[in-house]
Amino acid sequence: MKFTLNPLMESTAVPPVMEARRWLDGVSFPADQPLINVSQAAPVDTPPAEMRAAMSEAILTQPDSHLYGAVLGRQDLRAALAARWAKAYGGLVSAENIAITSGCNQAFAAVIACLAGKGDEVIIPTPWYFNHQMWCDMQGVRAVPLPAQSDLLPAPDEARALLTPRTKAIVLVSPNNPGGVEYPAELIASFRDLARENGVALIIDETYRDFHSKTGAPHTLLNDPDWDDTVISLYSFSKSYRLTGHRVGAIIAAPRFLVEVEKFLDTVAICPNQLGQIGALWGIENLDDWLAGERLEILDRRAAIIEGFPALKAQGWELMGAGAYFAYLRHPFQIPSNELAKNLVSSAGVLLLPGTMFRPANDPNGAREVRVAFANVDRAGITSLFERLTAQKP
Amino acid sequence: MKFTLNPLMESTAVPPVMEARRWLDGVSFPADQPLINVSQAAPVDTPPAEMRAAMSEAILTQPDSHLYGAVLGRQDLRAALAARWAKAYGGLVSAENIAITSGCNQAFAAVIACLAGKGDEVIIPTPWYFNHQMWCDMQGVRAVPLPAQSDLLPAPDEARALLTPRTKAIVLVSPNNPGGVEYPAELIASFRDLARENGVALIIDETYRDFHSKTGAPHTLLNDPDWDDTVISLYSFSKSYRLTGHRVGAIIAAPRFLVEVEKFLDTVAICPNQLGQIGALWGIENLDDWLAGERLEILDRRAAIIEGFPALKAQGWELMGAGAYFAYLRHPFQIPSNELAKNLVSSAGVLLLPGTMFRPANDPNGAREVRVAFANVDRAGITSLFERLTAQKP
Repeated sequence: MKFTLNPLMESTAVPPVMEARRWLDGVSFPADQPLINVSQAAPVDTPPAEMRAAMSEAILTQPDSHLYGAVLGRQDLRAALAARWAKAYGGLVSAENIAITSGCNQAFAAVIACLAGKGDEVIIPTPWYFNHQMWCDMQGVRAVPLPAQSDLLPAPDEARALLTPRTKAIVLVSPNNPGGVEYPAELIASFRDLARENGVALIIDETYRDFHSKTGAPHTLLNDPDWDDTVISLYSFSKSYRLTGHRVGAIIAAPRFLVEVEKFLDTVAICPNQLGQIGALWGIENLDDWLAGERLEILDRRAAIIEGFPALKAQGWELMGAGAYFAYLRHPFQIPSNELAKNLVSSAGVLLLPGTMFRPANDPNGAREVRVAFANVDRAGITSLFERLTAQKP
Repeated sequence: MKFTLNPLMESTAVPPVMEARRWLDGVSFPADQPLINVSQAAPVDTPPAEMRAAMSEAILTQPDSHLYGAVLGRQDLRAALAARWAKAYGGLVSAENIAITSGCNQAFAAVIACLAGKGDEVIIPTPWYFNHQMWCDMQGVRAVPLPAQSDLLPAPDEARALLTPRTKAIVLVSPNNPGGVEYPAELIASFRDLARENGVALIIDETYRDFHSKTGAPHTLLNDPDWDDTVISLYSFSKSYRLTGHRVGAIIAAPRFLVEVEKFLDTVAICPNQLGQIGALWGIENLDDWLAGERLEILDRRAAIIEGFPALKAQGWELMGAGAYFAYLRHPFQIPSNELAKNLVSSAGVLLLPGTMFRPANDPNGAREVRVAFANVDRAGITSLFERLTAQKP
């Protein structure tokens, strides 16, 4: 190429999920040991038949499903999500607090762009979700790692020590990706207090909220009538309704903040695609019971992880966290996790992601850890996964 | 709010189309004078029935329409678009040159992010497409205006004078939004030469290419076997197949460049929505004849603009450019175009966009100009539009 690249883009890591997919190239899996893919947090099944029927029908009968819509999303979906959040969290949330985005990654990108520019800082507990780091890297925003404790929970006092005049936000993900842990409500409130005292935003990514093990509100942030002076919540319809291919997420924040978000979304998306929004609304209106069943199934898989773990523990593995879609493990091998993960494709027929993808490059813990996205694997699959991993001798 | 905003976002203008929509709030239009909306370049009709049927069917029968796909898009669509471009331009284009994006705005955002960072410069002829300026503004990239000549064509020599060591790209839009003019192939080639000599990228946004008045290739860029060392082309499926609500666009560039693009798209979108891609592919495979008819209809509307214009000319209006979806006009009123445009909603039942939205704030020409997006208005509608405008006395 005769032109030069933005050095911030060049130094940003390649997308981990796409890199891991390339490890599969040229590898064949015998019929008696098919690939167990626990790399991506993505449902592999389609939405329920009734929902597909409703979406299919909308394409034929709703002309607006094909046309540009409002930048911040369809008014009916904004109102429905607001009502759901107001009810779930017992707080004051209106349609004006909601922006619909083309997935939750876009929600994060928009929020960070509206808060921070080159040279600013955002505090994110590690292990962290790689796309959060990637977006900060490419924007020249410093992702400041806040190493979680051994229970994978971050400590507000340690976050306080990281605050500088350039800090613009603290990011929490609960239930956590990649850690699987659920942050206690009190811990989340402490981070909110810390953020508010210091004039920074508290971003809480709740992509996996519908699979929380606790019934009832997982935090009390929205009970505070002034919640939106500090809190920005992110949500995804992708996991809950199996809409990953339709790209629908949301930002829940102050209307004044969404004025800025609208500029970003107009320029990067114009509007979220209409059919995904129609599907998401249909899900909110019709799938509560179904979603409750999905949650129980995921919780059962988590139980299977915990029940089956002693066999791995006997080989020196450690279960650091398990919840929502993920188990986060410390492995007993001498080789670093990125080599281990690549080897496991051919030696065990297992695709998982190495901890190096969830830690800054200079954090040695990444080499010792792996993430298992178990949501797509049923009890039998988890048994197979553990058998294959225990057959690998450290 | 207790937190601060990114000043680059705060100083970015609000989305013009959304602002103009708000001018309609509380205004009622009498039955004998309904609103003529020529503000947005958007089809108001749905895709053809056969295409809707195919998309509706895909929702029921193609499980992958609901699931995550590759970041750079579906392989079949990438290959089909590559084949179409190779044929249309007589050049060498393969699937590896194609990235599918969630609309052409996202294509532009991704390309600029991969080329330029804060403090860098991008040269864009004025009048320009507002979302191009907005994205540069919010990224801290300086959008350097290159004022077009009186025929709305930019001059390479004037661009040369604007080059600095911070210049990363020159952006052309042809057929032009907002100007409507089609850049001659020789002019486009001159800009490519200028870009190549100076080690900057030439971005050419061809959103409206399917409505070009010339049959055959509108430029010769891809005849050059080394085209992708300099040229980055952008395309949109939205206008051609009436897929605006499905968000599908594309980048045509060097595979090495798309490695960087993939990082951006992974973080901002994960993947383009699947159904829009399925629809776009169906369009490429089945709608050539239909699209040819659409083109003739748009060209006929352009002819109606030119034929009807003398009545406006008699009142002091000037037709600066007309083509693709747009007519760009110089108005004869004393008040600035942003006031005029707002007034026209109630006085004439016409919504159009003022030139102030297509020029930098310090360019006085914006106040004298307006854009008419005529693609949605048939011959009778264009007659009405002109009657209403001529009834407004300067």
